Amino acid sequence: MTAVHIVLFDDFETLDAMGPAEAIGRMPERYAIQCVSLDGGIVTSRQGIRVDTFPFALVNTSGILLIPGGWGTRSLVNDGAFVARLREMAARAASVLTVCTGSALLAKTGLLDGRSATTNKIAFDWVASMGPRVEWRKKARWVVDGKYYTSSGVSAGIDMALAFLRDRHGETAARECAQGMEYLWHDEADDDPFAVK
Amino acid sequence: MTAVHIVLFDDFETLDAMGPAEAIGRMPERYAIQCVSLDGGIVTSRQGIRVDTFPFALVNTSGILLIPGGWGTRSLVNDGAFVARLREMAARAASVLTVCTGSALLAKTGLLDGRSATTNKIAFDWVASMGPRVEWRKKARWVVDGKYYTSSGVSAGIDMALAFLRDRHGETAARECAQGMEYLWHDEADDDPFAVK
Repeated sequence: MTAVHIVLFDDFETLDAMGPAEAIGRMPERYAIQCVSLDGGIVTSRQGIRVDTFPFALVNTSGILLIPGGWGTRSLVNDGAFVARLREMAARAASVLTVCTGSALLAKTGLLDGRSATTNKIAFDWVASMGPRVEWRKKARWVVDGKYYTSSGVSAGIDMALAFLRDRHGETAARECAQGMEYLWHDEADDDPFAVK
Repeated sequence: MTAVHIVLFDDFETLDAMGPAEAIGRMPERYAIQCVSLDGGIVTSRQGIRVDTFPFALVNTSGILLIPGGWGTRSLVNDGAFVARLREMAARAASVLTVCTGSALLAKTGLLDGRSATTNKIAFDWVASMGPRVEWRKKARWVVDGKYYTSSGVSAGIDMALAFLRDRHGETAARECAQGMEYLWHDEADDDPFAVK
C-alpha cells in the first residue's frame, strides 16, 4: 500500500486536489489517500469546501505527494517555513505530482531546477517567475521529468493522474479507472488545447 | 447570493461532489457552497477525503441541493430518516442536482416520479429499481426536467454543472468557467459516450 499525501492550504483550488484524488483513489488496494497541511486541522478551499487534514509531521516520506494550486499559492510561495517543509517532503517522496499553480510551490523548493515542467496557462508567467531555472513548457497538458509530474490548470490534473496510473500499472488499468469515472480521458501529454498561441 | 448545499455521507464518491463544487464555485459572487450531512461533522469519501459538514438542520431550504453518488448510497436508500429529510429539502429547493447514484437517493424520495432522469451506466439497473415510476433514460450525459438535473457517472456531474450555469447565466459565463478550469466541456446532454449499447 502506497500513501498519497495531498498537500492542502487555505484557498486551494478544489478540483486540483480532488480530481487526482478520485482517479488514484479508484485503486484502494494500492493507494491510501491522506490530506495534509502544515499544522493539520480544517483547511478551506477557494470554493468553500472544508477538508480535515493531518499535520505535515505525520507524513510518511516514502509516499507520493500531490500539490494542488489555487489562490492560496500566491502568499504561500513567500512562506519560508512552508516551502522548507515542502522541500523536505518532496525530496524524499517516491513521486511528486503538481496541478496548476501547485507547480509554483514546487518550483520555489528548487527541486525542479534544470527539469521540464508545466503549469496552468492563465498564471503561466507568474509561475515561471517562481522558478527561473526550470524549463517551463508552454504547450503541454502535463509533463513528466523523472519522479516529477506537473500539469496544466485544474482538470488537467485528472489527465495527469490517469497517466501516472498508466505509467505504474499499465494502459488497461488506467483506462478502467477513466471508464469507472465516465471520464473522457485527454490522454496525450503534448496535446494542450489551452496553450496560449 | 444563492446557497448551494452539497449533501454528503460516508462513502460518497469524491468527484461526484467536488466536480460540480468546482464549476459552480467559480462564481463566488453568486453562489456560496456548504457541505451538509444528516448530523454534521466529518464525513469521509470513498477515496478517503475527510470533509467537515454542517447538519441538515441548518440548511437554507430555498437554495440549491447537490446530491453525489457513491457506495454510501447503497445503504442510505434504506435509511428512512435520511430519505425523509432529503425529501423535505429537495421539495423546497430551487434546484436539485444529482450525480451518478445520487439519482437513486432522489428517486427514493418519490420526487422524480413521472419525470425523466438518468444516472451512471454501470449501476443503472439498481438505480432504476429505486424509482420504478421514473422515466429513466439510458443514453444521456445528463437530463433536465423542471428543477431537477440528473447526471451520469462521476465526471458527467461537471458537464451537468456547467449546463446548469449556462441555463442560469448564459453560454458565455458557462464557457468562461470551463476555460478557467481548462476543462474540455462535453456540452451536449444527449451525447453519452458511456451509454450501454
